[in-house]
Amino acid sequence: MRMIKWQNGTVLTPDQTKLPLQEVTLEIKTLEQMCEAIKVLRVRGAPLLGAAAAFGLAIVAYHSQAKSREELLAELEEAAVAIKRQRPTAVNLFWAADRVLAKARGFSGVAEELKTAVVEEAQKIADEDAAQNHAIGKNGAVLIKDGDTILTHCNAGELATVEFGTALAPIRVAWEQGKKIKVIADETRPLLQGARLTAYELMRDGIPVTLITDNMAAHIMSKELVNLVIVGADRIVQDVVFNKIGTYGVAILAKEHGVPFYVAAPKSTFDLSHKAADVIVEERKPEEVTHIGGVQTAPTGVKVFNPAFDATPLKYVSGIICESQIYYPKDFPKFKSGATP
Amino acid sequence: MRMIKWQNGTVLTPDQTKLPLQEVTLEIKTLEQMCEAIKVLRVRGAPLLGAAAAFGLAIVAYHSQAKSREELLAELEEAAVAIKRQRPTAVNLFWAADRVLAKARGFSGVAEELKTAVVEEAQKIADEDAAQNHAIGKNGAVLIKDGDTILTHCNAGELATVEFGTALAPIRVAWEQGKKIKVIADETRPLLQGARLTAYELMRDGIPVTLITDNMAAHIMSKELVNLVIVGADRIVQDVVFNKIGTYGVAILAKEHGVPFYVAAPKSTFDLSHKAADVIVEERKPEEVTHIGGVQTAPTGVKVFNPAFDATPLKYVSGIICESQIYYPKDFPKFKSGATP
Repeated sequence: MRMIKWQNGTVLTPDQTKLPLQEVTLEIKTLEQMCEAIKVLRVRGAPLLGAAAAFGLAIVAYHSQAKSREELLAELEEAAVAIKRQRPTAVNLFWAADRVLAKARGFSGVAEELKTAVVEEAQKIADEDAAQNHAIGKNGAVLIKDGDTILTHCNAGELATVEFGTALAPIRVAWEQGKKIKVIADETRPLLQGARLTAYELMRDGIPVTLITDNMAAHIMSKELVNLVIVGADRIVQDVVFNKIGTYGVAILAKEHGVPFYVAAPKSTFDLSHKAADVIVEERKPEEVTHIGGVQTAPTGVKVFNPAFDATPLKYVSGIICESQIYYPKDFPKFKSGATP
Repeated sequence: MRMIKWQNGTVLTPDQTKLPLQEVTLEIKTLEQMCEAIKVLRVRGAPLLGAAAAFGLAIVAYHSQAKSREELLAELEEAAVAIKRQRPTAVNLFWAADRVLAKARGFSGVAEELKTAVVEEAQKIADEDAAQNHAIGKNGAVLIKDGDTILTHCNAGELATVEFGTALAPIRVAWEQGKKIKVIADETRPLLQGARLTAYELMRDGIPVTLITDNMAAHIMSKELVNLVIVGADRIVQDVVFNKIGTYGVAILAKEHGVPFYVAAPKSTFDLSHKAADVIVEERKPEEVTHIGGVQTAPTGVKVFNPAFDATPLKYVSGIICESQIYYPKDFPKFKSGATP
């Protein structure tokens, strides 16, 4: 199912802040509406944010009153700045907005033709993401056996992408292949993407899912209730995989129990010009830890540490499932060359 | 500070369901009030429950209109049944109620003298628990160095005991010794005893504490921000330590990062006539996972797995801090003999 759709100048996408209790479709018609949706996480997930940025520029182009190519280009440049400002650490916003701008800058037609070209480029970005995810699903499904139970962390599902998900893509393909599988979703504190989003989209698609709290993973592995772990990635550098906080702990537990631990991510997630030490992990506000759904759960004024991501060294990773292939540990040393092998 | 006090026929204890946002002292004057407080977890924590059961019988004795020793004894037997019924898996309720009953049954004086004897036995149970915890604190403090940061899980603090706590006792003694230490409390989903109770009582006592979600432990260990882990125990059998769900995961992470992992518990926690395989782990209701503070955080009807405890094999344990001594791995093989060495 498409998580973001273009319909005659309107962008349709689920309001993820309302899930799982309400299914509300946003109808975004202006740049301001798109910026607000990105800022407050109505739209989230690295690949989906890329498409959202591109469609944000498509909205500007589609509704523009610009009379010349130059006038429209100036509007698009300004809009790209506004979009990027909403979440300054989200590389996909930058990547997608810059790709659309590059297309526009290099375009030689008149204003009306440029409008069409911008909309087409945004649609192309979305289509490519969907195709990549289906390829990840096909590549990763070979790892899943009939009867397997797969643990996943956070939401690297359809709701984080244009379509099909990354970590959940191999699970979807295996399910379509008729393999009788089960998924265990950990809730993923502090923002509960596992409980709110992964459990929701798997239930919606009829794939069996059981919810646990994050600290139950070791126990269920010791009971041999998990055969495989698949998670997504926010950024893969030469020596580690950055992903949602909690991923590294799951990786260690998997290794200790002999459970294979796979990462599923498109090649655009690779950033092999950097190492773990180059990356500063974003710390988020204490209220995410001291409150849940508006309810205070900790003493007023307690000191909090709230890192958004952690780094899993490649020695804990059994493989990285990409759209082109699966990279195995034998391939990881090549990452140090700085180019995706 | 005493968490449970006897005052002329009234039992005073904090209402733990109201913490940390409200500090309400319960004034329990009847058996019914004590039963309700135990049932809904206003009073919780294994050692504190023992004292609560004993004081519940003391209330019955103190206010009794019984004319004979036999009449009073019958009232106490009936009250003990009522108390045990509130939390049938809490062994401390059984142990303490039975100890008071044994005292009463063996007592040869008249009714008025028996009343005094029952109150005195309850007070003795409470005093012994406090003394044991101070001894645990003294024994364990030698493990803590100036400048250490100690991670703890759940609440094995003063609020779980009559006084001073078990896992938090060595921390309190080290702090009193002037060691500059810090504590990291994980929130301990699903019931948040770490966020609600451990963070609260350490802040109250002025001991530096930082709150994290359960899934951040691996990350902070990788950053070398933890020198030592101390947790409590619900039941120590021949081969494993049963404690709050999440303990086993922390133990694995500690081993992987070379961080010592200690358990602090009185000898009454040892149950060396049993092995891990003999114990069925209690599963609690799904709402604890799907809701937080009354707020629903997961899809309606999602399947949930909610084990209350997990089992940490002794190979992950650096030592068990008791009131008499610290048991080290060299002592663990002796546990198989069935008697505390």
